[in-house]
Amino acid sequence: MRGRFISIEGGEAVGKSTQIRLLADWLKTHGRTVTVTREPGGTVSAEAIRALLLEGGADRWNARSEALLFAAARADHVARLIRPAVEVGGWVLTDRFLDSSRAYQGIAGGLGDAAILDLHRFGSEGFLPDCTLLLELPADEAARRALLRDGASSDRIGGRDAAYHAAVTQAFRGFAAAEPQRFRTIDASGDSAVVHDRIVAAIAPLMA
Amino acid sequence: MRGRFISIEGGEAVGKSTQIRLLADWLKTHGRTVTVTREPGGTVSAEAIRALLLEGGADRWNARSEALLFAAARADHVARLIRPAVEVGGWVLTDRFLDSSRAYQGIAGGLGDAAILDLHRFGSEGFLPDCTLLLELPADEAARRALLRDGASSDRIGGRDAAYHAAVTQAFRGFAAAEPQRFRTIDASGDSAVVHDRIVAAIAPLMA
Ligand SMILES: Nc1ncnc2c1ncn2[C@@H]1O[C@H](COP(=O)(O)OP(=O)(O)O)[C@@H](O)[C@H]1O
Ligand SMILES: Nc1ncnc2c1ncn2[C@@H]1O[C@H](COP(=O)(O)OP(=O)(O)O)[C@@H](O)[C@H]1O
Ligand SMILES: [Mg+2]
Ligand SMILES: [Mg+2]
Repeated sequence: MRGRFISIEGGEAVGKSTQIRLLADWLKTHGRTVTVTREPGGTVSAEAIRALLLEGGADRWNARSEALLFAAARADHVARLIRPAVEVGGWVLTDRFLDSSRAYQGIAGGLGDAAILDLHRFGSEGFLPDCTLLLELPADEAARRALLRDGASSDRIGGRDAAYHAAVTQAFRGFAAAEPQRFRTIDASGDSAVVHDRIVAAIAPLMA
Repeated sequence: MRGRFISIEGGEAVGKSTQIRLLADWLKTHGRTVTVTREPGGTVSAEAIRALLLEGGADRWNARSEALLFAAARADHVARLIRPAVEVGGWVLTDRFLDSSRAYQGIAGGLGDAAILDLHRFGSEGFLPDCTLLLELPADEAARRALLRDGASSDRIGGRDAAYHAAVTQAFRGFAAAEPQRFRTIDASGDSAVVHDRIVAAIAPLMA
């Protein structure tokens, strides 16, 4: 029996990593075999690309090289981890996936959505999640959580300006509106436990 | 005045690196400002990708990730080194460029020529050399030169089998036949000095 592939998406510090852990634990108590992974990265080769992407100065990569590197990492991640695990019946949960590239590089970065989708078709045969959970949180609350977590520090992409991050949030909303069958938009405000309950309700149809 | 962009292509050990040095020296004695570079690599960021590409086991990268990494490195190389140097009147000589990706990943690797050209359009706006020098040498002579240079060792791509390298050679020939205005096929047999003279004759039209 084929498993399930679920991505968790959203801006910085909306609670993706927190919720993916809670969801993984819940799925395990419900008898599923669960693999938790993240992007960029998730395999040895893709993690090597991740290191290139997140290190260095703001101009370390131009937008096009950056998009190609994400696609290269994702191709490895899909071919060597996600697809094989789903094929043997596992549930794969990934912290970010294609929609992050579409939002960050495609829309906020100005390369265009079609170009990012083309790269995904080339690299990963257009492989898509069964369900994408989009965590939504007002920007000021996300900023508060980020500050509590990181203090003033941030990585090469997280450190971009507020207009860039607003464009990312807008882009995610647009994707969810365009693909309502794949996306579930989750209100990420309130306690982690409350957000988790919303997620469990949203994925109920996949448990059948 | 716009400069010139020349790529040197061909299989392993046909004499590309030897001839690029001789051509660079010759151009300098003829008053040109010359930058010698290579692929994958040529810039700080692209050299970091080169290290990923040439290290590791034979299966470190699947073919699609590999092609995306080459395109990412090339996008940086074109945007930050080649194009700026040519725009201020320099001559840029590169040891391998797009046609190597087309031959190795596209044809010998089975991804198809169109896919590699698409990646180049995305990453580097399809930027092409003014002239591509294709060095041609019988396989047994190239193998002899490789053995003298490297002994039994070779890198992750150079170490692929004879059928793969024969397909690469055939692919280069096909590209040259399809684009006679860009390619100059150079007989790479005989002394380095003799091959150099053939190259100088071939690029004479660019000196005007
Ligand atoms: N529901 C929540 N309420 C308050 N703080 C939260 C909540 N969920 C997560 N956090 C905290 O906010 C910060 C960002 O959460 P995290 O899961 O790391 O977000 P992301 O992975 O989306 O960047 C962390 O310090 C985390 O502990
Ligand atoms: N014309 C030539 N005749 C004999 N040996 C050559 C000639 N040109 C280069 N070589 C030697 O052959 C080997 C491969 O040449 P190289 O320039 O490194 O090839 P490539 O860069 O195409 O792999 C080197 O050891 C080089 O010194
Ligand atoms: Mg996180
Ligand atoms: Mg060489």
